[in-house]
Amino acid sequence: MQARAAVLTKFNEPLQMQDFPLVPLKEGEVRVRIKAAGVCGSDVHMWRGQDPRTPLPMILGHEGVGEVAEMRGPKSDLFGRPLKEGDAVLWERGVMCGNCYYCTVKKQPSLCPTRKTYGISFSCAGPPHLLGCYSQFLHLRAGHPMIKLDLDVAPEVLVPATCSGATAAHAVEISGLEPGDFAVVVGPGPVGLFVLAQLLDAGAGQVWVAGTSADESRLKMAMEFGAANTLNVDELTPEEIRACLLDKTRGVGANVIMDCTGYAPVVKNWIDLTASGGTYSIPGIATPQKEISIELFKTIARKNVRLQGVWVSDTSHLWRAANLVAGGRYPFDRLITHRFPLDQATRALEVTASKEAVKAVLLP
Amino acid sequence: MQARAAVLTKFNEPLQMQDFPLVPLKEGEVRVRIKAAGVCGSDVHMWRGQDPRTPLPMILGHEGVGEVAEMRGPKSDLFGRPLKEGDAVLWERGVMCGNCYYCTVKKQPSLCPTRKTYGISFSCAGPPHLLGCYSQFLHLRAGHPMIKLDLDVAPEVLVPATCSGATAAHAVEISGLEPGDFAVVVGPGPVGLFVLAQLLDAGAGQVWVAGTSADESRLKMAMEFGAANTLNVDELTPEEIRACLLDKTRGVGANVIMDCTGYAPVVKNWIDLTASGGTYSIPGIATPQKEISIELFKTIARKNVRLQGVWVSDTSHLWRAANLVAGGRYPFDRLITHRFPLDQATRALEVTASKEAVKAVLLP
Amino acid sequence: MQARAAVLTKFNEPLQMQDFPLVPLKEGEVRVRIKAAGVCGSDVHMWRGQDPRTPLPMILGHEGVGEVAEMRGPKSDLFGRPLKEGDAVLWERGVMCGNCYYCTVKKQPSLCPTRKTYGISFSCAGPPHLLGCYSQFLHLRAGHPMIKLDLDVAPEVLVPATCSGATAAHAVEISGLEPGDFAVVVGPGPVGLFVLAQLLDAGAGQVWVAGTSADESRLKMAMEFGAANTLNVDELTPEEIRACLLDKTRGVGANVIMDCTGYAPVVKNWIDLTASGGTYSIPGIATPQKEISIELFKTIARKNVRLQGVWVSDTSHLWRAANLVAGGRYPFDRLITHRFPLDQATRALEVTASKEAVKAVLLP
Amino acid sequence: MQARAAVLTKFNEPLQMQDFPLVPLKEGEVRVRIKAAGVCGSDVHMWRGQDPRTPLPMILGHEGVGEVAEMRGPKSDLFGRPLKEGDAVLWERGVMCGNCYYCTVKKQPSLCPTRKTYGISFSCAGPPHLLGCYSQFLHLRAGHPMIKLDLDVAPEVLVPATCSGATAAHAVEISGLEPGDFAVVVGPGPVGLFVLAQLLDAGAGQVWVAGTSADESRLKMAMEFGAANTLNVDELTPEEIRACLLDKTRGVGANVIMDCTGYAPVVKNWIDLTASGGTYSIPGIATPQKEISIELFKTIARKNVRLQGVWVSDTSHLWRAANLVAGGRYPFDRLITHRFPLDQATRALEVTASKEAVKAVLLP
Repeated sequence: MQARAAVLTKFNEPLQMQDFPLVPLKEGEVRVRIKAAGVCGSDVHMWRGQDPRTPLPMILGHEGVGEVAEMRGPKSDLFGRPLKEGDAVLWERGVMCGNCYYCTVKKQPSLCPTRKTYGISFSCAGPPHLLGCYSQFLHLRAGHPMIKLDLDVAPEVLVPATCSGATAAHAVEISGLEPGDFAVVVGPGPVGLFVLAQLLDAGAGQVWVAGTSADESRLKMAMEFGAANTLNVDELTPEEIRACLLDKTRGVGANVIMDCTGYAPVVKNWIDLTASGGTYSIPGIATPQKEISIELFKTIARKNVRLQGVWVSDTSHLWRAANLVAGGRYPFDRLITHRFPLDQATRALEVTASKEAVKAVLLP
Repeated sequence: MQARAAVLTKFNEPLQMQDFPLVPLKEGEVRVRIKAAGVCGSDVHMWRGQDPRTPLPMILGHEGVGEVAEMRGPKSDLFGRPLKEGDAVLWERGVMCGNCYYCTVKKQPSLCPTRKTYGISFSCAGPPHLLGCYSQFLHLRAGHPMIKLDLDVAPEVLVPATCSGATAAHAVEISGLEPGDFAVVVGPGPVGLFVLAQLLDAGAGQVWVAGTSADESRLKMAMEFGAANTLNVDELTPEEIRACLLDKTRGVGANVIMDCTGYAPVVKNWIDLTASGGTYSIPGIATPQKEISIELFKTIARKNVRLQGVWVSDTSHLWRAANLVAGGRYPFDRLITHRFPLDQATRALEVTASKEAVKAVLLP
Repeated sequence: MQARAAVLTKFNEPLQMQDFPLVPLKEGEVRVRIKAAGVCGSDVHMWRGQDPRTPLPMILGHEGVGEVAEMRGPKSDLFGRPLKEGDAVLWERGVMCGNCYYCTVKKQPSLCPTRKTYGISFSCAGPPHLLGCYSQFLHLRAGHPMIKLDLDVAPEVLVPATCSGATAAHAVEISGLEPGDFAVVVGPGPVGLFVLAQLLDAGAGQVWVAGTSADESRLKMAMEFGAANTLNVDELTPEEIRACLLDKTRGVGANVIMDCTGYAPVVKNWIDLTASGGTYSIPGIATPQKEISIELFKTIARKNVRLQGVWVSDTSHLWRAANLVAGGRYPFDRLITHRFPLDQATRALEVTASKEAVKAVLLP
Repeated sequence: MQARAAVLTKFNEPLQMQDFPLVPLKEGEVRVRIKAAGVCGSDVHMWRGQDPRTPLPMILGHEGVGEVAEMRGPKSDLFGRPLKEGDAVLWERGVMCGNCYYCTVKKQPSLCPTRKTYGISFSCAGPPHLLGCYSQFLHLRAGHPMIKLDLDVAPEVLVPATCSGATAAHAVEISGLEPGDFAVVVGPGPVGLFVLAQLLDAGAGQVWVAGTSADESRLKMAMEFGAANTLNVDELTPEEIRACLLDKTRGVGANVIMDCTGYAPVVKNWIDLTASGGTYSIPGIATPQKEISIELFKTIARKNVRLQGVWVSDTSHLWRAANLVAGGRYPFDRLITHRFPLDQATRALEVTASKEAVKAVLLP
């Protein structure tokens, strides 16, 4: 038997549909049939050759939802429930060692020094080949954390929870947000919209979302998610933004600002709107940036502010994000603006790159 | 080649010295040569048949320090340092699954439902036989967390860190202690003395230690560890204890009380000395108890008090306890009052049962 | 000028309408015109003479919303906004000293040893007389924390935030709840319904609410607030409850149980449904209780469970509760089932005592 | 009766000794006789006119220990203990409002927008004149938090706890330090040495202290306080520092770096030695700085690092610092290198400015 996959063989060129053999499973391994694979902004970076680690040829796709196609030996999910063929499942996209300082002492497996990621770190040149989700099947290692889906939600709607959603959960977890706090999300892409939902769910009193004119439909979506207000930075001066935000926060400023733009210069526009004692978090920054300059006294020290980096996520965040989507309190189905069959993966990358899509998914 | 071990074959009878074959290692497994094995109070419970799960015949010993005797394939420690034969090592005594809800979402692997423990959960009837530390060798599964010892401390001094010390670290971690707080340790056994050191190290302003007349030498030891005062409950009335404790805490009471006696009725004597907003923690309770009665309003609700259970520990606590011992700020070498060769393991159990020993270790 | 108030002069008898002089304000004091006063379960206890501290004659009412009637000197609210006559305001019901160990070092002013409460601690026998909210006016001391209301919500809807809501916010704050956790509220009175909303707002994955047949309309209200399920303990056996809760939590149990019944024996029915590592919290317990018996090993220690007392609240909790009500995500207007003019205060106590009302308010 | 004080009348010129009348106390006010006043680095900044807010003429001195000289009405300390004349006392140097958003909701009174400081914010031109500690007497407002000293320690040794020590306690509180963590203190002045002691007391596994050749005696003092190692940055290349720190931390880096230099460019030398998931804290930054440039991906985002500002302190930190000094575990008496009578206050400023002194105190 064989599996079809969309393969990145050359940067900036269309992905190639290829067939791969299904290699026999070893004890504990699981073969998953992909039901929906998400297209992430970092897939676009890899496609364009902007990520030097990209191991060509490879199968992209670190966001996925599927069902058990084949198992070797018994395998249970997070809750000790035995898995069987046909079960709908989620899994952690990261491959952590489970026994290093970060995995066991710091309990931050997202910082595991040997962390790898399905759909990012592996070439498809050798067996087991199928280590990315732009494929009919994915080959999961023995002992990998899996969640049997008893959640009532379509696979493609759950897909973004496995990366953007999990990272957003991580960002909110370490944001220092307290119930009733006022928060601002800058950058209403998939991470930003998930952060918005997570902030509301964590008790934020109000969340405002800021974007550009190009983000207009996303800002509308933010209102549907429960944002209390949106700001179009192309239509307001910094002074106007400052004035209205300080007015609404009774002079305090934003207790938490979540900058999801991934673009370092934005920090300078927003960091001084952080309330004293608050947090400015940068979950969007995932690629090398130009240096920015900061005056530490006024911006950080005098106001007891925390500038917080956020790096990816772990299974705890995946679990929270999946719960949030399945909980049905937020219109996550609206996020999925484009659906493609597997052989149109290149088109899915294009609509992601152009921001035509909020989220594009492949349905293999 | 063979390994000698002290085997529990029948409750309440002397352990039997037996020889076991060294089974070939599988990929990733490690054979450790035991340099020192600790005798724990729960070993005595198992020896006496008070723990119904005890899988006879078995090799006791969940506390151990050793060196790598043999490996199959490369193996790194917590810090990614490759291990080689002859390296001095510590390891986690618990065997957790690493991919369940408690291991990954709650990050409390001590609550992993399938957790097992070397020296407690395994019979020696079948291969690999050597799964307890009252033995020349211990057989560690693939992927088990290990720490290469670059700490300058004798193996037998480090041994109690692997169980009592780790549990104490866990107890203090979830005690809510804030720097400057006043704490009381009730029960100056190995767990109590470790708790004392951990409390001091976590910034407790003062720690008092309470015991009975039978604990007199242990109370003296508590003073050497840095206790600010000791209380002999056989020589003081409850009123005297209350009066002097309230006087010393300026009327506040003890912010944290760590009851390490493992005997439920003691709770009633001490819980009302907990300060408002404080914690009464019961790390000593490790076996079924008689019910005790509590008036929830006066004792818990009106004072915003927290009654906190503590169950075993994980690798993060092992790491902290080992660091604490190796740091040299506390006289942990004083804890080790008795040393025996392996074939006197029964004698070691006896001096532990009689409380003649604070801590007895075997040097195989 | 004079003020009308409903005065408790004799236990179990109708409150007496009396007129009091408006004493001149001292520097910093504020006279508030009561727009709505809440009737709390503890008012019923005081009316019935079940609280030995009740200082007769007195004006009940610790829950209130009003407007500034008169000030002496400038006075600002929490945000430094100058108050002026006619401003709608909230205020902290507790009178804390602001400079003791609990107010400054522990930052838990609810535990201030000299804490007093408007409507609970003060007699109306001497000036300034008006220290409870069953009155046209309330006399606030200098320097008392006040919040100018820019929240768009009716006074009587906001009223329960000042006591039940604030206590609920406190309870959730110290519950250890993590996003995605499963929680159960036992007892769907005003505190229980507020706890439900606060749990959801703090990210609980699902909240179930349990009550008796007498609570049926309250259980329905719980569903409108967002409960995922309700349990009628009169219609289900303990085994049925356990089975369905364990099924829904995939075997884990409830991460947080909030027992808002205020009746100690209930603890024994529910505490064993707490998940390992979870919290059983008792915010409802506000009066002396019969002792209950607990087996500490099975219930607390073996499961690393926390039994948490909760005592009243402080201004931070008031702020959160008021925000939650004003945020409009929950149907708090539904809570207010009965409205009375001031001279029917006795009737308001009666419908509260009989549980005919979920929440009764006076509109002076 | 009159009081003598050293008055700053003109920048950069010797302080003038002047006599002031002791104005009558109002209800609740306390007059304190200063036993020891500390000279802080910010006193030097004010003396030199580098702080534009300095309200000439004024009495410097925000660090002080004294005894009650006179009271108007009853006054209790933090623990409700009535104060009387002759009692040795400490007090909070900051004057916070106690009823704003930061004082009550955020529980961070150090961020109170109206916070003022004795010895910094007040002119001596008008009554009550005596609002700084370079004086025989200090006039404390009604309701100010005070601590009756039952601690067995000399006044001048306790003095630095009231500012440097309290700020250090605050910095460590929000550093995210976990027991066993490796920490580095950069800049071994009074704040740095207090941070060192606080880190050790909070359970740091090891603390290294870095300074320049000019800090040599302070680095020696750091070793006496318990530093595991010191680094002279004038004698080591950045590569050597990196190599030895990574070696000692087994490749992890410093979990916490506390930069107490107060000089922004230093950040660039050290921030990349922060461990993934760690904190870089800047408690020393207390005056406006030149901008520094940071690459946010490599330095902050990719490593999940937190850059944390720290602004002054509150009474909780004062309490912890005073306890730490009084606890006797660290040689705080060594900090006090210079003692002067009040009329040599100018000389005390000079030895502080030249760094000849670690800490200079006045003994009025």
